[in-house]
Amino acid sequence: MAQSPSREAIAAHFRAMQDRIVEALGDFEPKSFREDSWDRPGGGGGRTRVVEQGEIFERGGVNFSEVHGTLSPQFAATLPGDGLAFYATGISLVLHPKNPFAPTVHANFRYFEKGGASWFGGGADLTPNYLFDEDAVHFHRTFKSACDRHDPRYYPEFKKGCDDYFLIVHRGERRGVGGIFFDYLQGDRPALFAFVEDVSAAFLPAYLPILAGRIDTPFEQQHRDWQLLRRGRYVEFNLVYDRGTVFGLKTDGRTESILMSLPAEARWAYANEPAPGSEEARLLAVLRTPRDWV
Amino acid sequence: MAQSPSREAIAAHFRAMQDRIVEALGDFEPKSFREDSWDRPGGGGGRTRVVEQGEIFERGGVNFSEVHGTLSPQFAATLPGDGLAFYATGISLVLHPKNPFAPTVHANFRYFEKGGASWFGGGADLTPNYLFDEDAVHFHRTFKSACDRHDPRYYPEFKKGCDDYFLIVHRGERRGVGGIFFDYLQGDRPALFAFVEDVSAAFLPAYLPILAGRIDTPFEQQHRDWQLLRRGRYVEFNLVYDRGTVFGLKTDGRTESILMSLPAEARWAYANEPAPGSEEARLLAVLRTPRDWV
Repeated sequence: MAQSPSREAIAAHFRAMQDRIVEALGDFEPKSFREDSWDRPGGGGGRTRVVEQGEIFERGGVNFSEVHGTLSPQFAATLPGDGLAFYATGISLVLHPKNPFAPTVHANFRYFEKGGASWFGGGADLTPNYLFDEDAVHFHRTFKSACDRHDPRYYPEFKKGCDDYFLIVHRGERRGVGGIFFDYLQGDRPALFAFVEDVSAAFLPAYLPILAGRIDTPFEQQHRDWQLLRRGRYVEFNLVYDRGTVFGLKTDGRTESILMSLPAEARWAYANEPAPGSEEARLLAVLRTPRDWV
Repeated sequence: MAQSPSREAIAAHFRAMQDRIVEALGDFEPKSFREDSWDRPGGGGGRTRVVEQGEIFERGGVNFSEVHGTLSPQFAATLPGDGLAFYATGISLVLHPKNPFAPTVHANFRYFEKGGASWFGGGADLTPNYLFDEDAVHFHRTFKSACDRHDPRYYPEFKKGCDDYFLIVHRGERRGVGGIFFDYLQGDRPALFAFVEDVSAAFLPAYLPILAGRIDTPFEQQHRDWQLLRRGRYVEFNLVYDRGTVFGLKTDGRTESILMSLPAEARWAYANEPAPGSEEARLLAVLRTPRDWV
């Protein structure tokens, strides 16, 4: 059996992953990411990298953090392991491209320790404004391949976990076309870390070809208008339902790093419903009834 | 002692108040409000009136509702009175003017019955993007006068209640310059209804003179940009902290009526901080440390 990876080795992996992803995004985005290193008053800190009003990305960020300290009793009670002391490290990214045909993407991979327990969580999901079936298929297939190399039960379970998690309850819509989402993966830490290494490495091949294929698509004002309404929905999900966001905001997390996930601009309109048969309606149908993509 | 007002009389008051407010807003806004009457599946219904992309208001709505039915045990436990059956009626409005110098305003007045208990709640608060001291003074004074006619303790208590309630915790900022906020007013129902009649009637004289004074102020793109960032904060408060919004969304309320409170457009920018000594910084200082306005 492989040696169990230390928390330092896991944090080093996530930090290196941040470097690798920001470097790869640099092949598309000429504007440099701004970097802020920060300390968490309760222990630990992080490195936030943000781009705004770039040529490709309207807003986006890739965060690394490694934090430790004491949880509130209420929050601690919802997690495995004893006591209040915790350690957490991870990478979290959201990219909102300018072009309405290029989808927003989110990924997050994290490792948590509390009491004697330790676990991995994370996932990646794709949020298009316009549905290109082949993009959704490619995204899902790429993550399925990474999952299948470790456990054939992973992809079906994590795909469903993603559809369940990213539900905007009050809209009856998912945030996007999903991907994978998993949490509380405990047990054989070397094997689980190997899985998380693989699945986090799948992010770039899952997303970059989609991005490359869409960023030069010509678009009109109507596409931008729809993109802004969909970004309103993104804001609704993140501020009302996303556990990490709400927990972070309510427990003195670094607000600017947490809310890096929000788009640069969002719009709301009363009782907007796209015309039947339109591309906008075709997207909504899939958000209301998730599809199998592989 | 005056006869205790029936729930029908209270609902009729709120319905008439909706008519009166929408009519008065028509003196400013040439675009008609769209009206939607709706039924609540669990019992009751409402009348939503919305304006979007008007000449004066970028987005706004004035809702009346009268609903009844059964509460979830979890929510029922947080309210006075026995059992799960409830009745509620009220008016709720939010107006987002186009001009960045004209403040957003919110007001809500409601009556609730549960078990043997009945109570009033509500308030009104002003959210400027640029601080005109005289506007904040006028708004507060108008509501203080209405409060003082009923109980000299009301205004100081409800002003503080407003500053405490409209706190965006993760920003350390209030949503605006406050006003009044009260809840669970129980006891002498005729006297409390008279108070709510008075204080809800104070809305138009509190807001319209401010609106009239600001809607023709010339503005530049930089003022619009700041307005959009402040509207992002409005979204953050409403989706993360506002009890009515979060409760409504999570319990199958009418989404479009609830989210009528959101602005037409909002913007987010990383680590934005206005220049020291600027008008934008002067507003922030007051949002961070509320002032006494009367």
